Amino acid sequence: MTLNETHNPDLKSWIESANDPETDFPIQNLPFGAFKTPKNFAPHLCVAIGDKALDLTSVALNNLLDVSSEIRAACTKGFLNQLMSLGNDAASELRLALSRMLRADAPKDLQEKIKHYLFERDKIEMLNPARIGDFTDFYASIYHATNVGSMLRPENPLLPNYKYVPIAYHGRASSIVITGRKIRRPNGQVNSDDKGEPKYMPSRRLDYEAEIGFFVGTSTGFGQIIPLREAESHIWGACIVNDWSARDIQRWEYQPLGPFLSKNFATSISPWIVTMEALAPFRTKAFERGEGEPKLLPYLYSPENAKHGGIDIVIEVYIRTSQMQKQGVAPFRLSRGNFKDMYWTPAQMLAHHASNGCNFHAGDLFASGTVSGKTREEAGCLLERAWRGEEPIELPTGEKRSFVEDGDEIIIKAYCEKEGARRIGFGECSGTIIPPFKVGK
Amino acid sequence: MTLNETHNPDLKSWIESANDPETDFPIQNLPFGAFKTPKNFAPHLCVAIGDKALDLTSVALNNLLDVSSEIRAACTKGFLNQLMSLGNDAASELRLALSRMLRADAPKDLQEKIKHYLFERDKIEMLNPARIGDFTDFYASIYHATNVGSMLRPENPLLPNYKYVPIAYHGRASSIVITGRKIRRPNGQVNSDDKGEPKYMPSRRLDYEAEIGFFVGTSTGFGQIIPLREAESHIWGACIVNDWSARDIQRWEYQPLGPFLSKNFATSISPWIVTMEALAPFRTKAFERGEGEPKLLPYLYSPENAKHGGIDIVIEVYIRTSQMQKQGVAPFRLSRGNFKDMYWTPAQMLAHHASNGCNFHAGDLFASGTVSGKTREEAGCLLERAWRGEEPIELPTGEKRSFVEDGDEIIIKAYCEKEGARRIGFGECSGTIIPPFKVGK
Repeated sequence: MTLNETHNPDLKSWIESANDPETDFPIQNLPFGAFKTPKNFAPHLCVAIGDKALDLTSVALNNLLDVSSEIRAACTKGFLNQLMSLGNDAASELRLALSRMLRADAPKDLQEKIKHYLFERDKIEMLNPARIGDFTDFYASIYHATNVGSMLRPENPLLPNYKYVPIAYHGRASSIVITGRKIRRPNGQVNSDDKGEPKYMPSRRLDYEAEIGFFVGTSTGFGQIIPLREAESHIWGACIVNDWSARDIQRWEYQPLGPFLSKNFATSISPWIVTMEALAPFRTKAFERGEGEPKLLPYLYSPENAKHGGIDIVIEVYIRTSQMQKQGVAPFRLSRGNFKDMYWTPAQMLAHHASNGCNFHAGDLFASGTVSGKTREEAGCLLERAWRGEEPIELPTGEKRSFVEDGDEIIIKAYCEKEGARRIGFGECSGTIIPPFKVGK
Repeated sequence: MTLNETHNPDLKSWIESANDPETDFPIQNLPFGAFKTPKNFAPHLCVAIGDKALDLTSVALNNLLDVSSEIRAACTKGFLNQLMSLGNDAASELRLALSRMLRADAPKDLQEKIKHYLFERDKIEMLNPARIGDFTDFYASIYHATNVGSMLRPENPLLPNYKYVPIAYHGRASSIVITGRKIRRPNGQVNSDDKGEPKYMPSRRLDYEAEIGFFVGTSTGFGQIIPLREAESHIWGACIVNDWSARDIQRWEYQPLGPFLSKNFATSISPWIVTMEALAPFRTKAFERGEGEPKLLPYLYSPENAKHGGIDIVIEVYIRTSQMQKQGVAPFRLSRGNFKDMYWTPAQMLAHHASNGCNFHAGDLFASGTVSGKTREEAGCLLERAWRGEEPIELPTGEKRSFVEDGDEIIIKAYCEKEGARRIGFGECSGTIIPPFKVGK
């Protein structure tokens, strides 16, 4: 977690919008993504800087990038997988080159050349940043697990394995979509009281889950474990994840093999992958276990992870109903949590995931599970936030929400800020619900 | 499910070994795979015929294949995905061309040309036949579900959703390996009595699960459902799957999100994908529900599926311990089940999987779950077969097995046979267990 010249909070860019104190994408961030323009259908890689996206593929193809040939070659691909596979040192070398190129004191003639490859971010179409081989979703917030558990088992909310095992399940990779993609309300089997006949019908309890996701960089072999002390070297970057969830379908289907159709219809991600290096100033200690709490098993403990394994990321969820949009009402904040409250760190999640020899490819994604904190205002899903619909949220229009309705847009934002460091952000992950298909025979 | 000239049981091949009544690969089968030779590192597609593999890629590249240019192009790839994406009509066209080329009455000069592209099957290395995007595992045997359920909940073995929902979970795609690949015993968290402290240690209850897997052919869009009557048109072919399972890890980790590390360290598959067309003569009726059993929901019922949705596939599991190998003892049969006993048909599994709009890519794999029948001898995993270790299996060497030991090879075979049709087989799916890594700090 060492800081270097790219983290210097005083650095300014010759791209003025990057110097706006409120931008998510100052020169200290430099997150990576993939995009296409109306004129160019082949996907290109890009870097966010202020309100612009720098066409990294074109910059690399035009020999304007002062990096090794291996890194340059990886920058010419339409997906980040190859760049991810080169690992964090390569990402660091690339960030440094980009940082120097975009600084206020970069040579004027270079600036002139680079300007040809800058796009307005709001004019381009962002694409899935990587071909995601496997997607895993954890359950790493003890507050979320306790809240959800208490709805099912009030006397015994947290299962006995929770404090030992970073609980997770496999998700569906094919249905991971980029922010902005419309999400169709799923149909599915629902059995409201677990008695009588279930019905195949539109979900009535559609929910979001605000999470942080991590992309794997360097791959591992079949049967190979990842010791905790090496886990961070396999984590390349982070994004926002919305694990859309149909609670009524989930309730009926999830025993005994876990959630399936209640989750795999759609997962939205934010398009900008913030590198672990960019997050370095915001590392925090891991969750502190109180007196009498079980000790970590040795494969999940290292002094370094205890000290710096966490990350201080604020995560906010907003809603904009179609009514709000019509009336020009700004999105309403439903919650604000922090990733540092998670019970397990990203390194622990990955080390556990590989502890049985499960292998990883560059571009695999694992997400944290709902990021919830102690209070109701920090709850990262509506199920908790509106407590199973018992305490609906009142919106500025007077509308109430227990679950997500058709036409609602859910917007998740995340950012890091701290005294002495430049604020960086993740951009946003949004999705609007469209009505279900009519159920036929 | 119409039969055509490729199914004619009287057809013979000019490749003599294909006419052996016991071969898995007569000319009526023609399953597809991918391979490399010691001289050729680039993967090629191939077709099994008798004890030979025909290099399909070279045959296509040398213009010896009488098919559309689209199919020919797909045959030149090193993975089956593109061929799968063209769907079942394309597979049918290709099978017909191959059948005519390999029949006893094929022109002699063609036979001479083709001979250059025949390899001894036991001299080549088979590769993963497709890039598997997503892997899903069902739980479609009611006998297996009842047996396993009765171990956990003797009074209430089958959960209330079972007869309505084709239960499934997502598996790990990265750790799917081809037959013959050695399987390292996983380490993991085990807590034998669910009390006290768990330990990170080698699994002591390693098991296999004998299953049939199905590859998706034509893809579907994000949000698109697959009506049951169309589901078969999206299923391209089948193989044997061994869903290796660490029962002790599973027991401790699986609540509330399902099995994870207990399964994702390895899944073995057989290398030959038997097309749905080749399986046409062996279609059977779907599982018949008795009086008083719940009716299928409309999206899971069609008259065609009720009549022909099942497949009559015998599935056998053999063990060969290192002791047996040393003594030259033949593999010992542990079980023989039949896929026609499954509670859900492949079409129902896929229609359910897509009923919420979950999208599919060519090369996605879904497996049936353990194929078990009514009797103990039909149980497709050791957990059932040796009833939690309470009734260990005695082997010809006098050894006993409750779970799989280091050095054991598990061999799964599958085949279809029926009066009036030529017997066809799947080949085998085998894996030998190697000792775990030593647990360090």
